[in-house]
Amino acid sequence: MDAEIIAVGSELLTPFRQDTNSLYLTDKLNALGIEVRYKTIVGDDRARIAVVVRTALERSRWIIVTGGLGPTEDDLSREVVAEVLGRPLHEDSRIRRRIELRFARVGRAMPPNNLRQAQVPEGAECLENKMGTAPGLWIEQGGAVVILLPGPPRELESVFESQCLTRLELIVPRTILRTRIYKVIGLAESEVDHRIAPLYNSYNNPVTTILATPNGIEIHLRARAADDSAAEALLAELGDKIESEMGESIFSTGGETIEEVVGRHLALRHKTLAVAESCTGGLLSEQLTRVAGSSNYFLGGTVCYSNELKTQLAGVPGGLMAEHGAVSKPVAQALAAGIRRRTGASIGVGITGIAGPAGGSENKPVGLVFIALADELGVQVREFRFPGDRDRVRLHAAMAALEMIRRRLRD
Amino acid sequence: MDAEIIAVGSELLTPFRQDTNSLYLTDKLNALGIEVRYKTIVGDDRARIAVVVRTALERSRWIIVTGGLGPTEDDLSREVVAEVLGRPLHEDSRIRRRIELRFARVGRAMPPNNLRQAQVPEGAECLENKMGTAPGLWIEQGGAVVILLPGPPRELESVFESQCLTRLELIVPRTILRTRIYKVIGLAESEVDHRIAPLYNSYNNPVTTILATPNGIEIHLRARAADDSAAEALLAELGDKIESEMGESIFSTGGETIEEVVGRHLALRHKTLAVAESCTGGLLSEQLTRVAGSSNYFLGGTVCYSNELKTQLAGVPGGLMAEHGAVSKPVAQALAAGIRRRTGASIGVGITGIAGPAGGSENKPVGLVFIALADELGVQVREFRFPGDRDRVRLHAAMAALEMIRRRLRD
Repeated sequence: MDAEIIAVGSELLTPFRQDTNSLYLTDKLNALGIEVRYKTIVGDDRARIAVVVRTALERSRWIIVTGGLGPTEDDLSREVVAEVLGRPLHEDSRIRRRIELRFARVGRAMPPNNLRQAQVPEGAECLENKMGTAPGLWIEQGGAVVILLPGPPRELESVFESQCLTRLELIVPRTILRTRIYKVIGLAESEVDHRIAPLYNSYNNPVTTILATPNGIEIHLRARAADDSAAEALLAELGDKIESEMGESIFSTGGETIEEVVGRHLALRHKTLAVAESCTGGLLSEQLTRVAGSSNYFLGGTVCYSNELKTQLAGVPGGLMAEHGAVSKPVAQALAAGIRRRTGASIGVGITGIAGPAGGSENKPVGLVFIALADELGVQVREFRFPGDRDRVRLHAAMAALEMIRRRLRD
Repeated sequence: MDAEIIAVGSELLTPFRQDTNSLYLTDKLNALGIEVRYKTIVGDDRARIAVVVRTALERSRWIIVTGGLGPTEDDLSREVVAEVLGRPLHEDSRIRRRIELRFARVGRAMPPNNLRQAQVPEGAECLENKMGTAPGLWIEQGGAVVILLPGPPRELESVFESQCLTRLELIVPRTILRTRIYKVIGLAESEVDHRIAPLYNSYNNPVTTILATPNGIEIHLRARAADDSAAEALLAELGDKIESEMGESIFSTGGETIEEVVGRHLALRHKTLAVAESCTGGLLSEQLTRVAGSSNYFLGGTVCYSNELKTQLAGVPGGLMAEHGAVSKPVAQALAAGIRRRTGASIGVGITGIAGPAGGSENKPVGLVFIALADELGVQVREFRFPGDRDRVRLHAAMAALEMIRRRLRD
């Protein structure tokens, strides 16, 4: 029941691009008990794609080809797979109509080369693509299944999720793989490992993996069992120990992002939020508003990069900045209190800091960030020194602000 | 003169780890004029590694195997390659001494399995590894060269740099590979292809690739020539035609992002910018402030999610929203003009729209976005209907706003 993933695209053979779809696919296939044995990356070249597909057909039961389904001349996956499998292509009028409609809906003329995407190999099932014009394809031949998926990750994930999962579940014998993901904030990967290694070392089911991500550390537990409740019991046995060791540092056990957790807490308590950001430049607002329905609790905020705007938009007294500097505890407090007062939000957050690369000094180095939270009980403020470059400092600061809100709402 | 990279390691077939060595290697090989045609990833399995190496020997001149040279039982690359090439292994006493010395120097006993690393296939050259215990191997056979490199990136890069580069330069005839990247905005991938395919179809040097990225379409031209100026001439010949066909739609030829281009134009013209965002929730501000030094021209902005804040922070008259709705041309205009007036910026931008998933109606569907730009000449406003989900609508809207600013600054 082994799978092989073939990523098609010349850009994936340059130093600038990497195939990431296979990580998503591996995760999904593993959950069904299917192991990925080979991954191959090949350019937009008819002969070479054919070689790779033929090789895969000799050795794998599941062959997933990603990319090369687009409308352009160098999108060849559909044609080459049809040729290798000896299945002539014909135009599918339903797909044609769907593509025409997509263009019509956004009021644009359809370039004729888009019709390539309506070509279907004989006997293939089409996998509807709600996110784009290129449908996926599912072809069974001689015991093997060849699945073609569009390359853009959101299209690939949408097609796989809505069209492939059920089909796969019908064919694959049921062994259950269940994953529990703990998300941790405010600790380094090595600290997390140091604390939980004594717990997980004695288990090989679940398998434990610790992962550093831009949004914190994740602890993945993967249990394999005959059924759901057996898998859950295995997860609970080790998971409970990890939860009690990590305590408050775990902000999510169900895969939620921290902005989702914060949003849920705010909605539950009928509280509203407004933010005044300087060094994060809108990142905190942007993260909060990624959550659908965030307009129910997030009123808005200001990005006050200049000192004048800190006064103008968040009511920070000019004298305060003259006295303490724009990057200071009092200014963070004034931003939080000011934006709360101006917007009437239950909670106001203020961020000021030095993201770099320029602007640092000995006393106030790059990475220095003050974050304040104002609510009906008063204003709390914290000082942080974040490592890394501009992007990292901004990301760390936005995450720290979300974590301050989360902790405040829990208390 | 084509190369193939084989990454060995079961961890590279999980959802959590990715082969990154191949990006480094591709960069180095390209600089020598060697193209990477295939990348394969295979687990620590004797039979499967053998299949992959045999396949590579049939189709590639340069075969680089990374990983699987360590001391443990599941490090199999050395043995399998020796077997496939029919070259018995023997112990190299110099390597053995070097490994023993390494352990002695840190005062540790050498685990006996480390001696596996002193095994060398007959006729292979050893590539010294200054960063670790596993040496690389260089094996020439029947016109092909098989290079084995250790998996840890530091070790791989050190061995490649110090041992492989000179060897390669002696063998490879000097050819240069140069890349030019055009970034395009406001057009679909298929439209770009439709317009430039007639131009690039008659060239196979440079090679043209069209790429859809979250931040627009990229056109990559890669030219191969004997030296820099010949490569540049080839790039210019096709590139000039593409530039004159795509005209204004090309916003960058040197790899710059659109926020960098906008920032450069603003700085050059001593103009300042402020934004009032609704549906993009801070994304536009966040993109603008990714650029180091953006505080020189970006004053800041407001994220006014609620109607009250549109009035409070950007001075949008309440009556305007009552009459036209918050998502409307007049409100976008009022946001742009209001934030410009309040902040004293040269340019004010206002965005209002429906990002979804909820909030759409028949008249005002999800994806409807109005973007306005106010400057000393007045206020222009555009209506957009963006496809896709919440994330896509927000991203499209922020990109469209950046593009409006860019065009305004060029005029």
